[in-house]
Parts: sequence; structure tokens; C-alpha cells
Amino acid sequence: VIGSRLNHLEQLKGIEVTLISETFQHTGSFKFRGAFTLAQHMQKEHFITASSGNFGQALALACKLLSKRCTVVMPQTSAQVKIDGVRSYGGEVILIDTTQVTRGKTVHDLGEQNPGAYIAHSYDDPWVIAGNATLGRELATLVPRPDCIVVPIGGGGLSSGIITGLREAGADIDVIGAEPLLANDAARSLRAGEIIANDQEPDTIADGARTLSLGMLNWEILRKGLQQIVEVPEDVIRKAVRMAFSYANLKVEPTGALSIGAILTNPELFAGKHVYCVVSGGNVDAATYRSILTD
Amino acid sequence: VIGSRLNHLEQLKGIEVTLISETFQHTGSFKFRGAFTLAQHMQKEHFITASSGNFGQALALACKLLSKRCTVVMPQTSAQVKIDGVRSYGGEVILIDTTQVTRGKTVHDLGEQNPGAYIAHSYDDPWVIAGNATLGRELATLVPRPDCIVVPIGGGGLSSGIITGLREAGADIDVIGAEPLLANDAARSLRAGEIIANDQEPDTIADGARTLSLGMLNWEILRKGLQQIVEVPEDVIRKAVRMAFSYANLKVEPTGALSIGAILTNPELFAGKHVYCVVSGGNVDAATYRSILTD
Repeated sequence: VIGSRLNHLEQLKGIEVTLISETFQHTGSFKFRGAFTLAQHMQKEHFITASSGNFGQALALACKLLSKRCTVVMPQTSAQVKIDGVRSYGGEVILIDTTQVTRGKTVHDLGEQNPGAYIAHSYDDPWVIAGNATLGRELATLVPRPDCIVVPIGGGGLSSGIITGLREAGADIDVIGAEPLLANDAARSLRAGEIIANDQEPDTIADGARTLSLGMLNWEILRKGLQQIVEVPEDVIRKAVRMAFSYANLKVEPTGALSIGAILTNPELFAGKHVYCVVSGGNVDAATYRSILTD
Repeated sequence: VIGSRLNHLEQLKGIEVTLISETFQHTGSFKFRGAFTLAQHMQKEHFITASSGNFGQALALACKLLSKRCTVVMPQTSAQVKIDGVRSYGGEVILIDTTQVTRGKTVHDLGEQNPGAYIAHSYDDPWVIAGNATLGRELATLVPRPDCIVVPIGGGGLSSGIITGLREAGADIDVIGAEPLLANDAARSLRAGEIIANDQEPDTIADGARTLSLGMLNWEILRKGLQQIVEVPEDVIRKAVRMAFSYANLKVEPTGALSIGAILTNPELFAGKHVYCVVSGGNVDAATYRSILTD
């Protein structure tokens, strides 16, 4: 949890912004909270997941710390740094050719071959939500209490966890979602009153929000607990990454910058308020980061 | 103060590294500690300094918080972001053409025009050292206690402050300096037993270490209190910035990365030890940072 110099910016005049950073969490994103809670409480010795992003690394480290086994199915085309990341935390990597076989089929087959293993979902899971709720409980203890909390939304794991944790702690603080405009299935779901899925994986730079739809468990919490969702254009996501770099010395991944981007997109919504912006993670490769800084 | 994933790296095998980050300090570097302590204790209403880097911004904010006046003399050629930085903290900026007049002359003249003002030195000052000593006292309270602390060295303000703070707290922990090989006047001074100055401003990427020599007050503390100095080549400084980016999600300025670079330069010195690496600041502009990430 850190403060920031964003408050000096003309663009944010009248809005008090505090960044809540999960970029220094174990494995560099909030995902470790859910992964560790799952691996700790689920009475299994072997976990299998298809997540090639932050959840895969988080689950690998969680299992290592708990002396359990972890298998992560990843496309052959994954960035080497991500493959190395999982391995460095002791995870077993299975590389597949996604033109030949889907990740889902591979995980299913692995499950049949390892009947004692647990197939871990990165957000639609009660233990994962319970793990992410620890951040909500931490936010409830901070003083001064903010007027609202802005949270990036992909599958809804973090936002549903934060709402759960805040309510457990008895804190009635507004929670606002921040979603890429290019991947606005959650915003459309909230408007429709039911889960709406994207037709295909959205091509947003916020790779943590390239989910097809919200999880069922997450949706049940978000439909009642989320105030609204701000849809953030791609260029504003990139600008938010640069602002975190220039004015907060914070290395943020595009998905993590969505919460800052929400304020830039709709400043009127936050006028006169003290806002906690949750920065969900910092894992972005050098090439992508360089291209964003160049904009 | 944060931990890091640097410990997973093969290159650092057997060395336990903890990063002590001042990049989220007010104004983005440790300089605020000394600047605030000086502006708070010195019974003057107006402070003048020639520092165009981190100290200028730090003194401007310190004076603003204390309702005092601050004037910063900067070369016309300073990066606009630095000029804007000082102004955003309420400092008055005087731009000079350094081909026509030196900063020293300008500051001297300003002092004559403002006889009540105090000419602030960014490191060779007892209040500045006392302010930086607060970090030493904080380090003395941390558990587990490290085997040694590595600190970037420019003018010697931070390193002399940390040694002072540690000794005040009764902590007898080795302090090792990290200096650019291109700007190794402190290492040469330690070998010679007297202050040796650089002939001209060294052309290192670590701009906070482009000082001509150690300060007198700093030298008196360092000659007795510093264990040794590691001289870090330019390419290793750049590599250290990239390692902080990739494995700690930490945006570090080149001067701040010197402490990590010292371990990479001389790993044998740190074998089997638990090392606190002080990262002194994070203020680096996007163009420089991009060029380092590209290496």
C-alpha cells in the first residue's frame, strides 16, 4: 500500500488518489492470495491449471511453499519469461500446440490421468475468492476510509474477493469496476442483469482482462455488490501505465493500470472524492513496457 | 522496504538480497529525509540551492510543507520534467545559461541579494546527514538483521547518514559503498586516506553520482565507518536496473541500482550473506529508462 504523487496532477485536480499496489505481492500480482488459500485449504497434493499468466506462477509458488505438486498447461507460444517464471517457482510446465489440442482438453485429460489431482480455476472458485477477500479486509482497516475503491475486472476474481472482504469487515464502501472498453463483457453483464460473454478473446493490451466472461460465483457477488463499471479505452490504459511510471515510480502492468485509467476516463464520477485505486499486478515484459513508454 | 524475487536468480545463488526502496519516499528519493530535516531545523525562512536533481525537488516540497520559501537554480538545459517537478512542489526556479554564468556564482549572488536566506548544500551539511540518519535508524530495527548493507555513493550524504543512524542505534552492521567505476573518486579517496576529487563531472549514467568529490563532513564519517567500496561498471549498472524491473517490479533510477550492481560486480564478497541493498531513488525519465530496457 503506497501513496502517490498523482495528486499533484492537473488532470486529477480535486480527486485524492491513493494507489493500493499488489505489484510487490509474492509473484508480482494479487493472484498469490487466491492461489495460496486454495492450495492450503483444498485437501489435495497435486494441482493442475491452464492459466499461463499470473495465476500459473502464483499457484506454482503456493504449492512449492506447501510442499505440494503443481502442473501448469501453457501454449508453446508463451513468452519464455512466463515459462521460466513457473519453473523458477517449482512448477511443472506442459507445453502444448494449441492448433492441435485445446488447453481445456489437455487439462481434462491430465485430470483423468491424475485422479487425485485438483483442477484449479483462476477465479471461479470459492477458495480463490476467499483468498482475494484478504485484500478487502485489509482495505477495510485503512484510515482514512476512502469514498470508493476502484478495482480492475477480468474474470471478477479480485473484485468479488474485495467486496466479500469489505462486507465481512462491515465496511460499506462503494466498489467500482474498471474494465477495458475492448473487453467490456462485465459492464454489459451488469446492464443486462445476466452474464454476457465475449464471442472471442478480446484483443486488449490488458492481458489479465482477456477473459471470455465473468465466473458464476464471481457474478453472484458482483451483481449485488458492484456500484458500476467504467469502461477504459486502450489509449487511456496506456496513459495510466505512463502516469504510474512518471508520478508514482510504480511499474504497473496494463491490467493493473485499469483502475487509474477509470479515473482518467470519467473524472466527474470521482470529483471531490478520496479514491483507493487497486493496482492488481506489475508483471509486464520489457518490450511491451517500452512500447507503452514510447506513446 | 520490500522483499524481492532476486533471490531466485542463478547469478545471486547463495546470497540473500532484500531491497530497501526509497523510490516511494516523498519526491521519489531519499533526498527528502535530509531536505526536510534541514528546512525544519534551520531557523531560516528562505532556502536557496543549486541542485537540479532529486535534492531540488525534495527541498521544494519540504519548504512547501513548512510554509517556507525555496529557490532552485537550474541550467536552462535541464529536462522540462525536472523543472516542472520543482515548480509542482511550489519551488521557485531560476534558469541560467551555464555557458555565461556558473551555478555557484548565481547562488552566491542570490545569497547576497537575500541576506536572510540559507544556501543549502545537498549532502555536505550536518542537518542533511541527520535527516539521512533516520534511514540508518530504521534499518537498525529490521529483523532479521542483515550481514551487511550496500549503499550507493555520490557525494556521500546517504552513506554517511546511514552509518550515523546505525551507530546511534547501536547496530554494528558492515556498510559497503557502491560507486560507478567511471566516478570512483570515493573509492580512490578511501585508498588514499584523503579526499580525491574527479577532474571533471564524470559521464556515468548514474546521474546522482556525478559529483566532483565527497563532502568534508561526509568524508569524516565514511573514512572510519565504511567497510569498502565496490566500483560498478556502466553495463552492470544498466543490468541492475533491468533486474529490478524484471524480478522485483521495481522502477529504479541508475544511481539507485548501484547497490544491486555491486553484488553483480563482486558476488564473492557477499557469498552466503544476507544483504540489504538500499535503492536510493526511482526518478528516471522515460527515454533513459527505455534505452536501458533495450540493452
